[in-house]
Amino acid sequence: MDYMIGVDIGTTSVKTVLYDTAGKMQGYSNNLYPLYQDVPDMAEEDPDEIFSAIIDGMTTVMRKADLKNGTLHGVSFSAAMHSLILLDDDHKPLTRAITWADNRAVKYADELRENGVGKQLYEKTGTPIHPMTPLSKLIWLRNEQPDLFNQARWFVGIKEYVIYKLFGVLQEDYSIANATGLFNIFSMDWDDQALEVAGITRDQLPKLVDTTDQITGMKTDYAGVIGIDPQTPFIMGASDGPLANLGVNAIDPGVVAVTIGTSGAVRVVTDKPKIDPKGRVFCYYLSKDHWVVGGPVNNGGIVFRWVRDQLFAPEKLTAEQMQIDSYDLLTEIAAKIPAGSDGLIFHPFLGGERAPIWDANARGSFFGLTRTHSRAHMVRAALEGIVYNLYTVMLALEEVVGKPSSIQATGGFARSALWRQMLADIFEQDVTIPESPEGTALGAATLGMYALGMIDDLSAVKNFIGVANVHHPNPETFPAYRALVPIYIRLSRQLQSEYKNIADYQRKYVHKSDKK
Amino acid sequence: MDYMIGVDIGTTSVKTVLYDTAGKMQGYSNNLYPLYQDVPDMAEEDPDEIFSAIIDGMTTVMRKADLKNGTLHGVSFSAAMHSLILLDDDHKPLTRAITWADNRAVKYADELRENGVGKQLYEKTGTPIHPMTPLSKLIWLRNEQPDLFNQARWFVGIKEYVIYKLFGVLQEDYSIANATGLFNIFSMDWDDQALEVAGITRDQLPKLVDTTDQITGMKTDYAGVIGIDPQTPFIMGASDGPLANLGVNAIDPGVVAVTIGTSGAVRVVTDKPKIDPKGRVFCYYLSKDHWVVGGPVNNGGIVFRWVRDQLFAPEKLTAEQMQIDSYDLLTEIAAKIPAGSDGLIFHPFLGGERAPIWDANARGSFFGLTRTHSRAHMVRAALEGIVYNLYTVMLALEEVVGKPSSIQATGGFARSALWRQMLADIFEQDVTIPESPEGTALGAATLGMYALGMIDDLSAVKNFIGVANVHHPNPETFPAYRALVPIYIRLSRQLQSEYKNIADYQRKYVHKSDKK
Ligand SMILES: Nc1ncnc2c1ncn2[C@@H]1O[C@H](COP(=O)(O)OP(=O)(O)OP(=O)(O)O)[C@@H](O)[C@H]1O
Ligand SMILES: Nc1ncnc2c1ncn2[C@@H]1O[C@H](COP(=O)(O)OP(=O)(O)O)[C@@H](O)[C@H]1O
Repeated sequence: MDYMIGVDIGTTSVKTVLYDTAGKMQGYSNNLYPLYQDVPDMAEEDPDEIFSAIIDGMTTVMRKADLKNGTLHGVSFSAAMHSLILLDDDHKPLTRAITWADNRAVKYADELRENGVGKQLYEKTGTPIHPMTPLSKLIWLRNEQPDLFNQARWFVGIKEYVIYKLFGVLQEDYSIANATGLFNIFSMDWDDQALEVAGITRDQLPKLVDTTDQITGMKTDYAGVIGIDPQTPFIMGASDGPLANLGVNAIDPGVVAVTIGTSGAVRVVTDKPKIDPKGRVFCYYLSKDHWVVGGPVNNGGIVFRWVRDQLFAPEKLTAEQMQIDSYDLLTEIAAKIPAGSDGLIFHPFLGGERAPIWDANARGSFFGLTRTHSRAHMVRAALEGIVYNLYTVMLALEEVVGKPSSIQATGGFARSALWRQMLADIFEQDVTIPESPEGTALGAATLGMYALGMIDDLSAVKNFIGVANVHHPNPETFPAYRALVPIYIRLSRQLQSEYKNIADYQRKYVHKSDKK
Repeated sequence: MDYMIGVDIGTTSVKTVLYDTAGKMQGYSNNLYPLYQDVPDMAEEDPDEIFSAIIDGMTTVMRKADLKNGTLHGVSFSAAMHSLILLDDDHKPLTRAITWADNRAVKYADELRENGVGKQLYEKTGTPIHPMTPLSKLIWLRNEQPDLFNQARWFVGIKEYVIYKLFGVLQEDYSIANATGLFNIFSMDWDDQALEVAGITRDQLPKLVDTTDQITGMKTDYAGVIGIDPQTPFIMGASDGPLANLGVNAIDPGVVAVTIGTSGAVRVVTDKPKIDPKGRVFCYYLSKDHWVVGGPVNNGGIVFRWVRDQLFAPEKLTAEQMQIDSYDLLTEIAAKIPAGSDGLIFHPFLGGERAPIWDANARGSFFGLTRTHSRAHMVRAALEGIVYNLYTVMLALEEVVGKPSSIQATGGFARSALWRQMLADIFEQDVTIPESPEGTALGAATLGMYALGMIDDLSAVKNFIGVANVHHPNPETFPAYRALVPIYIRLSRQLQSEYKNIADYQRKYVHKSDKK
């Protein structure tokens, strides 16, 4: 047997997965690290804690698998987008890794949106203007921590930092670079205007390489710890969104990947970079002729968790006592309510929202309440609202890349048959749930095999994934959803005028200490 | 001792109260009758069941009190507004009493609002255009049940029917007449245009009399049953809203009566009829120089009941097991949340709304949800939302009659200290809760004493009522409420554009049988 390792550096853990050349998982390690949220809107990680977790993960997998010499062909990386680390002259971190979830640059992102520069940059970088991007974070740091900013010799992301520590080489793949907001997707190079707006120069950034680029020559002490041949090729890999599409076999035109985990996303592959005139969707590089266009949403399964914890606390206890999954119990309650929740509409923006409205001040709402509505209606409306929101992202995507033909769906939501069927019914599309649980790591491994010539084409991934479930849309639900979605969309627009006001109120009057 | 009886003919029961001349309750009977709701939007009562209940109530009170001859000076009536009964040539009912809660004339009320005729009529009648009014019901019956309509010789309300049965005299007091939508408050007579729009003539209506008008000569068989001297004077009395103001001593300028029972109202007395250019408030006659301007709201305590029954069903059971009042338990939960519910705003329009938005399609909503909001926030937001709504009625009233100076508050809500304090805080006014539990019956008895010359002035009522509670506004809450009320109001306007759409959806897709 021959093998490939996919490493998925996520927000709360790194997943290290050993695959055989049939795409079967042969080893697995999940190594956690803390997310630091010392002040409001902060979301940082310690790059050295991540580095240790990666070493631990690889070590665990390698020791356990005990592979024959020469059978491990390579290691390929996925990493979360948008992280920023400031390094000094010696490549030592001056900051922690500021993650995508960090919102402290909100003021500067707003400015870019308002003064029109954001639109100019988006149209070249394919990266929506948002506090999550390194572009916004650089402006924020330059303005609010100038000493720190001026001390920095290098500006990198977590993957670049890890590669540097392993190989002593500072380079960045197009896909990760793409998501910084500093990379021009048409010239495939750092964008001069973006660099100027950020206040940095080209020579403060890593060298750009393709996602299929290989590196060898790992430092021998690390190789020794892990138990890996130091000549094993490492493939740069890409960022997690594009690799997730690959890992669920959503790389053919029209095949849409929908994820509802804690957050969510809708993404589709095109062969050329595409821009949304309204700036609602991103366009990120995966590999030559593969670009991923899509929208990330904050409010996925985390909203269902809120419904369970806050609106169904007593039932959650009941489920615990019954030793059944509390989400399953809630799903059963929701299933008793008809499609459309008897006209109760939920906007799921509990945590602000990225795509499609890109409004960090957005808030959740229930609309249409009558005395016949119960909490059971609320849980169903919440599940529907999460899907309506993803559907509006799909509608934005359609304007850019055309009609979808089918959906590959993943994430924790897929444990609920009701929720999967809702996705099919609201999108009016066939929905397939792939069997492989670690799509992003599989995407990384597949890209690695492609880079090494072990497969001819990325579409080989279809042989790697099984099918867990298939759902066809139920036409009986169409009248309800077709009537409610337009109301949902018009309301989103109506409510937008008050999001800033209520968010300002909450920032001013809600005591920080009360925040959970 | 000398005595007076106040009879309050309500929507679900008649309350018969015996007062001494110090305004102290000396006897009481509450006699129920059913509300018929055979089809959606119907709300009817059987006039003869009401008549029997009144006879039963008076009999109970008289037999129990066993008064000395000549000490009962009179009986005075309050009745719910807007009821309509069709009578034949022999004064026999052709219909049940169609109550204020009946919404079947909605189409015709909408038409009046839309074609501008409604506004013309409102400006003369002081009665908002709404399906509740006899005006709307007459148009509805003429169009949808022409045979029945044409058979009718007389169009009366419940009080006129009762008086006719007791005395053989068909007459209607200005106050009840005022609320039909057919009465011109400036000419103090039926309005020709309104009669024409309704499609009836002046001679199909009872004779108009003042609210202080006396009748004697009760049919002796009824007098015998009740045990009352047939020469006892009966005072016509007024409708329940105006008499409630009197009964809580809210008759001086600036003193506002706020009621939160199942529904709610905000009302204030002026010395001249006043009209709201925006048509949001009613103006009803009480007595010479006393007009009551105000707004009725559908969504009072019934919304708190919904929160309890639907959102807090488990806690309701807990309260039952603890043998404590479930509303008290919920109030305690709400009290733990800061004023302003951490920026969660609730529009209480679960049952459509009358004042101030007059939109039967209005629906409830929660706005501003974040992941830190819990059900405890929802219950507090609901209590606050009910008060915000009443406050917006107050703002409309202010435009018509000027700033309030203090509040007299009544209704089931007054059992909650938290809710009473909220009223003081949101209105920024001192709130007094009178001790007398049956304000409307006391108002009727007071008007009766005034009519009989037993008191010189209606303001004598102040000696009749005690004070149960006083609340002063707490300035610490002002910043929260002053920030949120404007958002609440702007949202009301924003959401209005979708009320009809969601209500149409609910009418079309929610199965009638599912309605509770
Ligand atoms: N302990 C309590 N705390 C708070 N609110 C209460 C309490 N008890 C009752 N209520 C509220 O009072 C409402 C009932 O009010 P009330 O008893 O005045 O009703 P009603 O006479 O049917 O009303 P209406 O006068 O509108 O017909 C309930 O729906 C509830 O909201
Ligand atoms: N049995 C279930 N039924 C429905 N939804 C579920 C179930 N279990 C988990 N979920 C949803 O999945 C979410 C977690 O998704 P997951 O993909 O595991 O998270 P992450 O994005 O953090 O990797 C939960 O917040 C919940 O909404």
